[in-house]
Amino acid sequence: MQKKDISEAVIKRLPKYYRYLTDMENAGIQKISSKELSEKMSLNASQIRQDFNCFGGFGQQGYGYNVKSLRMQMANILGLIKPYNAVLVGAGNIGQAIINYTGFKKDGFNIVAAFDKNEKIIGTNVNGVPVYDISQIDDYIKQNKVDIAIIATPKERAQQIADIVTEAGVKSIWNFATVDLKLNEDVVVENVHLSDSLNVLLYKTSNDYKPL
Amino acid sequence: MQKKDISEAVIKRLPKYYRYLTDMENAGIQKISSKELSEKMSLNASQIRQDFNCFGGFGQQGYGYNVKSLRMQMANILGLIKPYNAVLVGAGNIGQAIINYTGFKKDGFNIVAAFDKNEKIIGTNVNGVPVYDISQIDDYIKQNKVDIAIIATPKERAQQIADIVTEAGVKSIWNFATVDLKLNEDVVVENVHLSDSLNVLLYKTSNDYKPL
Repeated sequence: MQKKDISEAVIKRLPKYYRYLTDMENAGIQKISSKELSEKMSLNASQIRQDFNCFGGFGQQGYGYNVKSLRMQMANILGLIKPYNAVLVGAGNIGQAIINYTGFKKDGFNIVAAFDKNEKIIGTNVNGVPVYDISQIDDYIKQNKVDIAIIATPKERAQQIADIVTEAGVKSIWNFATVDLKLNEDVVVENVHLSDSLNVLLYKTSNDYKPL
Repeated sequence: MQKKDISEAVIKRLPKYYRYLTDMENAGIQKISSKELSEKMSLNASQIRQDFNCFGGFGQQGYGYNVKSLRMQMANILGLIKPYNAVLVGAGNIGQAIINYTGFKKDGFNIVAAFDKNEKIIGTNVNGVPVYDISQIDDYIKQNKVDIAIIATPKERAQQIADIVTEAGVKSIWNFATVDLKLNEDVVVENVHLSDSLNVLLYKTSNDYKPL
């Protein structure tokens, strides 16, 4: 399977394919054509075929795709087959919501520890996840398998935390702090910038926005 | 000021400009050139000038931008000057985190009521926001000024909620449910799809991703 040189735009569509295929499999649908898939997903059928061709293509032209097999291959491409250990930094509102969001465990994504500087919550646990003192995070990462750090601290602290966890060896950051982290090239990051998202919505709300 | 035909890509950058300008104003910076701004934001200087030209341009070539005035104009473009009333549907983990996320109040964004079907939380309040029975939402929207509905329900319920709130007159949805809502053309939506974001991160983590 060829995975090189996949554009960011294609990558962003992969979870959407996976999501629709999961829903279809759960609904008992066994086969789907790229045309039917394109109608369901409001995407162009030729774009779907092009996207799939980035990964060598799936199924035969004119026969449609086997939903179950395509979903499995998509899960494989997305890297959902293997388990991931994540640590959470910042066990406040957003951090606790992330821990409690049950949707995550399904994909082999485990939050193994949380870290905070608030003495009131250090030593407690949130939905089974122990909360440790932030000063211990460097040791923790060096002594345990940690694939991902979730940063849910105030934005003023986020860069410092990113520096600590990446120096300790973490190569992957899910960043909820509203700040653009400066990271080495070998570190990957996905941002969830809630206030940016809200501001885009307010722009569209106030400007009588119509999609181009 | 010309606001028509602004592409989605430009719109997505506006909150980022606003964020950097706010940080700069707070740091006491009064003037900045597009070159300096481009270095701070890791954007191309000519792209910044092009983006600003979509709105008629700000400041004079060669003189740099006045940070305070540019931030004000950006706030105006984003529609942050006026107040917004929002209702939240689904006062679970994510919903409560949204209410508690103090960052939102600053921009005149007020969550005035929450709705849920869970009898244990109906009649309570979350950080001062009253939680009502979901069956009352249609009446509430018709009797109060509601600009935005935040949907933080399980995905199975999200489309139904979207139908109810838009029929009651809401034209703007901030959707946290992992589902693509089918909406009339006059309704704007911004999605925060946490599990899609995580899946993109897992893809990059597992595939030794390098930006193109």
